[in-house]
Amino acid sequence: MNEESFVRQLAASLPQGPDVTVGPGDDCAVLDFGFDELVLAAADQVVEDVHYLASKSSPADVARKLLNRNVSDIASMGGRPTHALVTIALMPVDEKWLSSFHDGLKNEASSYGISIIGGDIASSGKPGHFCSLSILGRVSRKALCLRCNARPGDLLFGTGSFGGSFASGRHINFTPRLAEAQFLAGRFTHAMIDVSDGLLKDSCRMAEASGLALELDLGKIPCASGVSIEAALSDGEDYELLFAVPPSVAEELKNLWPFKDLPLSQFGRFIEGPRGSVSGCDGLPLKIGKSGFDHFHE
Amino acid sequence: MNEESFVRQLAASLPQGPDVTVGPGDDCAVLDFGFDELVLAAADQVVEDVHYLASKSSPADVARKLLNRNVSDIASMGGRPTHALVTIALMPVDEKWLSSFHDGLKNEASSYGISIIGGDIASSGKPGHFCSLSILGRVSRKALCLRCNARPGDLLFGTGSFGGSFASGRHINFTPRLAEAQFLAGRFTHAMIDVSDGLLKDSCRMAEASGLALELDLGKIPCASGVSIEAALSDGEDYELLFAVPPSVAEELKNLWPFKDLPLSQFGRFIEGPRGSVSGCDGLPLKIGKSGFDHFHE
Repeated sequence: MNEESFVRQLAASLPQGPDVTVGPGDDCAVLDFGFDELVLAAADQVVEDVHYLASKSSPADVARKLLNRNVSDIASMGGRPTHALVTIALMPVDEKWLSSFHDGLKNEASSYGISIIGGDIASSGKPGHFCSLSILGRVSRKALCLRCNARPGDLLFGTGSFGGSFASGRHINFTPRLAEAQFLAGRFTHAMIDVSDGLLKDSCRMAEASGLALELDLGKIPCASGVSIEAALSDGEDYELLFAVPPSVAEELKNLWPFKDLPLSQFGRFIEGPRGSVSGCDGLPLKIGKSGFDHFHE
Repeated sequence: MNEESFVRQLAASLPQGPDVTVGPGDDCAVLDFGFDELVLAAADQVVEDVHYLASKSSPADVARKLLNRNVSDIASMGGRPTHALVTIALMPVDEKWLSSFHDGLKNEASSYGISIIGGDIASSGKPGHFCSLSILGRVSRKALCLRCNARPGDLLFGTGSFGGSFASGRHINFTPRLAEAQFLAGRFTHAMIDVSDGLLKDSCRMAEASGLALELDLGKIPCASGVSIEAALSDGEDYELLFAVPPSVAEELKNLWPFKDLPLSQFGRFIEGPRGSVSGCDGLPLKIGKSGFDHFHE
């Protein structure tokens, strides 16, 4: 069993109350507290020398990445972020490091209107920095996007370009597609995911969750500058959006797309077929799960 | 500047939106989403060889401690826990360890009716386990307890006995005082804290937050078996409750206390005086901040 299957199996047996509309397994959990909007919740972490190199990233970079990974998860559900809690384990408890981290976090959170409502700082007992952040958000009921909502015939669209995120430093200095997701959600799509583990893996997750197969049109996938199609498919941490668009609104979407600096591309189609299978990659030395990012990311 | 002052200063400048009734600095943040009850949120972590010894604690023990530290924070606000998110960084990504952790977490969460709604598992890049948990809860507006709510003349009460938590293993296998806190909150107290960093330190925090001084009556502090008064005052991780009781209801509380197996003691009094100062410890080799647990714990 691979790590993803193992963790999915564990998650499936966790207790869920009646107010949990969506539990573990999508980019966020969805809670129904009985008011107009739904509440979104997610948690993610950033570990030194796993998610960034200390030699190349400032503490403020680390804080921004930690927050923005989570904001990207809120975005892909169609929501907006509201509150966050942060824990840090580090040794030594270095005031200079913490001050820089704090400034990065504060500035980035302020730009979104996110309240940083609490957390914990502890010794890690050994050298290294381990940061975790939980985020809360809101989404209107009609804008909620789930990875399981793709329908047969829906077209697979994506924002931006793919691959080379680590080499280019984009995995640290990315901008979550929050405004774009809010434009899309409810109007052009109800099925969205952010690309944390690679275009191929994350688009497969949509197909699998939706009980469908996926046809990719490799020739239409926008590769980042200098990046091969293999890397565009399997590199992690693009933090772009993938989403399923009904054919009836695809032309309207292309005409109305207001983000002139960000490419919008259609490069696949969800179809009836073996659940989670992908066609169109024939001849490429790829298999799902090959991605360098096989950590589990709910 | 000590770590607590430093972190408090950082926290004070974090952005807070209008729905944040209480931000960082109490056991939980308090959010007002506009419905009958308030929402509570907190985050805490458990780090191998800092908060437990891997040689003495099973992964299920670690999961229980991680959850119960957070449940204790919800309890001390007068609330009940509802949802949690968990992140784990570990190396190797050991399925046996994760399965045992998962079982401990699932069973403990189920016993409280807590939904485990998401999280993340990642490589820690180096040996060791780093676990973080964020918890959500609910509290009625009239039961909400804050550490800043002690009033001059209020009596300081505590549950249970104090000290020796590490030697006895109680720091792992404790029961958060959830039922006790719900009995107390709103009826006998509006000012409560859980003892994570030692009786002296945490009672001082209440006094300081309330703008008051504290008189301790050392002779009445219940020490755990075999524990000195110094250790009872300064050891961490008792996870008992400290709370301020108006004299007008103190007798009623003693008469009605329904938890026959858990001592209830009165051993101090909040008074007008230098903010956060403590009297009654004269002659003991103690100073506030001496505690072995000087990590910051919101």
